[in-house]
Amino acid sequence: MSSILRRCTKLTHSGILSMLPGSNGRSCALQYFASEKRYSTSSKIKVDLDSNTGVAIMQFQSPPVNSLSLDFLTEFAINIEKLELDRSCRGVIITSALPKVFSAGLDILEMYQKSPEHYVEFWKAVQEAWFKLYGSSKVTIAAINGNSPAGGCLLAMCCDYRIMAENPRYSIGLNETQLGIVAPFWFKDTMQNVVGHRETEKGLQLGKLYTAPEALKVGLVDELVPEEKVVSSAAEAMSKWLAIPDHARQLSKSMMRKPTIDRLLAAREADITNFVSFTSKDSIQKSLGMYMEMLKKRRS
Amino acid sequence: MSSILRRCTKLTHSGILSMLPGSNGRSCALQYFASEKRYSTSSKIKVDLDSNTGVAIMQFQSPPVNSLSLDFLTEFAINIEKLELDRSCRGVIITSALPKVFSAGLDILEMYQKSPEHYVEFWKAVQEAWFKLYGSSKVTIAAINGNSPAGGCLLAMCCDYRIMAENPRYSIGLNETQLGIVAPFWFKDTMQNVVGHRETEKGLQLGKLYTAPEALKVGLVDELVPEEKVVSSAAEAMSKWLAIPDHARQLSKSMMRKPTIDRLLAAREADITNFVSFTSKDSIQKSLGMYMEMLKKRRS
Amino acid sequence: MSSILRRCTKLTHSGILSMLPGSNGRSCALQYFASEKRYSTSSKIKVDLDSNTGVAIMQFQSPPVNSLSLDFLTEFAINIEKLELDRSCRGVIITSALPKVFSAGLDILEMYQKSPEHYVEFWKAVQEAWFKLYGSSKVTIAAINGNSPAGGCLLAMCCDYRIMAENPRYSIGLNETQLGIVAPFWFKDTMQNVVGHRETEKGLQLGKLYTAPEALKVGLVDELVPEEKVVSSAAEAMSKWLAIPDHARQLSKSMMRKPTIDRLLAAREADITNFVSFTSKDSIQKSLGMYMEMLKKRRS
Repeated sequence: MSSILRRCTKLTHSGILSMLPGSNGRSCALQYFASEKRYSTSSKIKVDLDSNTGVAIMQFQSPPVNSLSLDFLTEFAINIEKLELDRSCRGVIITSALPKVFSAGLDILEMYQKSPEHYVEFWKAVQEAWFKLYGSSKVTIAAINGNSPAGGCLLAMCCDYRIMAENPRYSIGLNETQLGIVAPFWFKDTMQNVVGHRETEKGLQLGKLYTAPEALKVGLVDELVPEEKVVSSAAEAMSKWLAIPDHARQLSKSMMRKPTIDRLLAAREADITNFVSFTSKDSIQKSLGMYMEMLKKRRS
Repeated sequence: MSSILRRCTKLTHSGILSMLPGSNGRSCALQYFASEKRYSTSSKIKVDLDSNTGVAIMQFQSPPVNSLSLDFLTEFAINIEKLELDRSCRGVIITSALPKVFSAGLDILEMYQKSPEHYVEFWKAVQEAWFKLYGSSKVTIAAINGNSPAGGCLLAMCCDYRIMAENPRYSIGLNETQLGIVAPFWFKDTMQNVVGHRETEKGLQLGKLYTAPEALKVGLVDELVPEEKVVSSAAEAMSKWLAIPDHARQLSKSMMRKPTIDRLLAAREADITNFVSFTSKDSIQKSLGMYMEMLKKRRS
Repeated sequence: MSSILRRCTKLTHSGILSMLPGSNGRSCALQYFASEKRYSTSSKIKVDLDSNTGVAIMQFQSPPVNSLSLDFLTEFAINIEKLELDRSCRGVIITSALPKVFSAGLDILEMYQKSPEHYVEFWKAVQEAWFKLYGSSKVTIAAINGNSPAGGCLLAMCCDYRIMAENPRYSIGLNETQLGIVAPFWFKDTMQNVVGHRETEKGLQLGKLYTAPEALKVGLVDELVPEEKVVSSAAEAMSKWLAIPDHARQLSKSMMRKPTIDRLLAAREADITNFVSFTSKDSIQKSLGMYMEMLKKRRS
C-alpha cells in the first residue's frame, strides 16, 4: 500500500498535467452521458463521473493497446481507490478509448530483462489492481469494446457485469499458456468464479481466447451488443444494478468474493516470490523474447 | 433443539385440534394419490402420507401467502422431523395449498419492532427449518405452484428436485437485497450449490426474481410443467427417485451436502448474533417499515 | 507404490508374452496414425506410441467389457506411469478395442466374497489408477466409443478432454447407487470438477446414466462424433492441445487438480478402511450378489 501511495503523489501530478483525449471514433457512444463532467485525467486512464447518476466512466487510453504496464496499473489502482472513497460515485463503467482493443493485458516489457526488484514492484502493482477492482464496493461493469486477452480478461472478469461488442473478431480469455507462461492461482480463482471449474481447466490449459459468441456461451461475458452500443448498454445495465440499495448489494458482493480475496491476501508474499523466480528463469525469458519477436514481425 | 421440542408439544396439540382443509381448487391434482391418508394436520401445514408409496405430500396452507412466521417454521421443522423418523416415509413433496404462491418467504413481522430475544428465537427457527430440510435423508421434491421469493426460494432450493408451474408470472429467487437486507451465507451456499458461483453472485446482488422460464434456464428449477400438473409431475419424478435404494442414495446426498451443513453448524451462534444485530439496526428497521407500507398500498 | 512396482515386474513379463490384438472393426480408425509403433502390449491393455507425434493410443482389450479388475487397474497404472516417465510421449488417447463398451467400471468380482486383505489391495489399485491418470502431466483424451458406467466414467472424467460416439444407446455416468453402493468422495470430486455441484448431486443420487446427447448437454463429455470417428477426432483434438507449450500447460493443469488430489492423499487410509468396511457388510454383499444374478440372467 505505501508504495502505491508514494506513486500516487507522482501520478496525481502527472495526471493534472496530462493531455486531453483526442477524438477517437467512440465519443459518440459517450454522448449518452449528458451531464458528465471530467473527474480526473491521468496520462493513461480517463475518468468522468456523472454527478447526477453517480456513474463514472473509466476509459483506457494508453496506445497502442492499453498494455498493463507498471505505470498503467498504478494509475488504475489509484483511480479505482479514489472512486471507492468518493461517496458520490456508485458505479464504474470500464471501457477502452482505443479502437479494437479493451486491453492487451500485462505489459511484457515489464517482465523482460529487468531486475528482480522491478519484477517485485510490477507484480505488487498487478496484485494491487486486482485487490482494488475485485474488492470494489461500487457496481463495476466492463464495456468490452475490443480484444481482451490475459490481464485484459482479468480486469473484465473482476467486474460485476460484462458487456462485449458482438464483433466475432474480438476475443477474450486467459491465454497465458500460449506464451509459455502460467496464469497465477488468483487469475484462475477469478475465472473459476465466473465460468466454473471445468471451463477454467480447459480454458487455462489451452490458453483459449474465446470469440465474443463463445464467451457469451460459456458465461465469460453476460451480454453481446453491437459495437457502438457497448457503453450505452453498460449504462442501461448500470441503472438496473443501481436500483438496489447499495449497502445490501455491497454486503452480498463481499460475501461472494471475500474467500477469494482472502486466499491471495494469505499468500501475497509467496505469490510475489513465485512470480519473480518464474519470470527470472532463462527458459521463460527466452519464451517472452520469442513472443515479442513474433509480435514485432506481425506488426511490420 | 430443546426449544423446538418444547414448541413441538404445543403444536402437536394444536395440530390435533386444527381445522380440516377446505376445497382450494388444487385438490384435483392430489387425486393422483389414491391411497393417501391424513398423516397430520396442524394449523399451517397439512401432511398426507400415502402408505402404499411412502410418499408424503406437505401442503402449505397459511393464508394469505404462506409467510414463514415463527409458528410456521416451527411446525415445518417438526413435520419434517416427524417424517424423517417415520420409516414408512421415503419421500416428501412440498407444495402450496394456496393460489398463486408457494411461499412468500420469511415473515417480516417477525423482524419488525420486536425484542432481540424474539429475533434470536425467530432466527433459530429459520436455521432449524433449513437444517431439517437440507439435511433430510428422504427424497424431497418441491412442487412450486406459485411465487417463491426469498425464504420460499430457500425451501425450494433445499429439495432434491424442483418442478415449477410454467406460468411466466410466477417467479423465484433470493430477492433480499431489494428489501435492503442481505441473504445470510448459508442461503448463499444453498443457492451456489444449485446454480453455481456466478449466477449466485449476480442473483444475490440484484435480488433477482427469476421468472419460471429464467429459473429453468439457469438451473434454479429442474422442470416446468402446466400449473395443474405440478403435483402429479412431482409424484412421477418421485417414483424415479424412489427406484434407487434408499441407503446408497442417502449416503450420496449426505456426501454432497455435509460440508455446507457443517459450515452453518460451526457458525450457528455467530450467525444468530449477526442476524440480531443487523435486524436491530435503525436503518434496517426503517427499510422494513417502508417495505411493509409499500406492500399495504399495493394490496389496497 | 511398492506393491505396484512388484506387480509391474510380473506384468511386464506377461505383457511381452501377451497375444496380439485381433481385428475388431475399429482398426480402421487407427490407421490415422500412420507412423505408429507398438509401445507395449500387456494382456489387457495395448499401448502404441507414435514417435512422430508423441501421442500414445491406449486401447482397453479385456473382454467381455473391460472390467476394472485388480489386474487391469494395475496394468493401467503401470502403463500410465511408464508414459509419464517417457519424455517422448506428450499425450495419451484412451479408448476401447472392444465393441460397444469403453469400460464397464470396477470389476464387482473383486468386491464379492473376498477377504478384507483383498479388498484393501483392490481399493489401493483403484486409488492408484486415479492418482496416476488424474495427476498425469500428459494431455489425456478419452475416446469414448461405447458404454462407460461407474469406474469407466471415472477414467473418462480424469482425462483433459472427452469425445464420445454419438450413438444414443451408449451412456456414461456414476451409476453406483443403482447397485446399492456409493461412489467415494473423490469420484464425487472428480465429477463435480467436470459438471458442477448440482448436476453431480442429482447424478450421484439417481445413479444416472447419461445418454451421449445428455452427457454433452450437461458437459460430462465435450464433443459427440460419429462412432467411426471417435479416435481420429481425439487425435485432431490432441494436436490442438499439443500446440500449447507443455510446461505452461502442465502447471495450469496441476493448479486446477492439486486440491482434489491432495484431498484423497490426506484421506487415503481412511478411504480404504471405509471401502473395506462398507464392502464387507452383509447387506452390500447381498446387493452385489443380486446384481450379478441379474446380469447373468440378462446375458442368458
